[in-house]
Amino acid sequence: MVDPLDAALTGLSASRAFTVSSDDVGDFVRISGDDYEAHTDPDFMARSSFGRLIAHGALLVGYMSAVGTMAIRGAQARGNIDIPVSLGYDRMRFTAPVFFGDIVTATYSVKSVDKAKRRSLADVVVVNQNGVTVAVAEHLMKWLHTDADVTV
Amino acid sequence: MVDPLDAALTGLSASRAFTVSSDDVGDFVRISGDDYEAHTDPDFMARSSFGRLIAHGALLVGYMSAVGTMAIRGAQARGNIDIPVSLGYDRMRFTAPVFFGDIVTATYSVKSVDKAKRRSLADVVVVNQNGVTVAVAEHLMKWLHTDADVTV
Repeated sequence: MVDPLDAALTGLSASRAFTVSSDDVGDFVRISGDDYEAHTDPDFMARSSFGRLIAHGALLVGYMSAVGTMAIRGAQARGNIDIPVSLGYDRMRFTAPVFFGDIVTATYSVKSVDKAKRRSLADVVVVNQNGVTVAVAEHLMKWLHTDADVTV
Repeated sequence: MVDPLDAALTGLSASRAFTVSSDDVGDFVRISGDDYEAHTDPDFMARSSFGRLIAHGALLVGYMSAVGTMAIRGAQARGNIDIPVSLGYDRMRFTAPVFFGDIVTATYSVKSVDKAKRRSLADVVVVNQNGVTVAVAEHLMKWLHTDADVTV
């Protein structure tokens, strides 16, 4: 008999494209409080080797979170799944700059399930419209029972 | 003679409080595309062990990013520092739920400097108004020369 958590999570993946708009980066500056000149000052960045404004790495984490939610819904479609919570990320790297107007695709792929701990580990990759990987991470999800034990 | 990068980064820290407003979480849903019911559906969460809506972990990463920028400005105040970029995070964990209206304080503390690679490693901790740690991570910053080599 296949374990219900295995059945819901094995091979699960989700993917979505996001357009990195100037407005969204501006709103992210306000919400996060991160007003680093790399995201806000075109003159500052014109003098840099990047040449122009770049998006926050933390905004890409928002996209990672969104495809994680898509994966949760995929799991729920396969079976009766408790409310999961994001435990965190490992080896998160911002590997190339993301510019305003870029279209990036985030993909979430479950790669292992720890049934005893009710955790899954997933690879998350964000690729731009030129096929360049701009961010990677491993994501750890906890599939809860009734108790909200999110301490790790 | 003290190395200029060491002089700028040794013991550097930055800290700031953030109020997690319902409006900001709503805007984060729109920007990130992550509309998980944990952040948007009070009835769904009333049935959960959390009892109410929680903020995105990825929003806390935005706060981590903001105190990283404060640390950059602290380094720039100490000396002539090139444009740094965020390389990524390790061992990021969301250790307790964050509710709307919570006031969380993020603190960024440089703990080591790799002069050869021009990288610094920092502990980032986010604590709520009750003294509970809600998120932790290690952050890796690259202090660039003129070339924008962000590949890791």
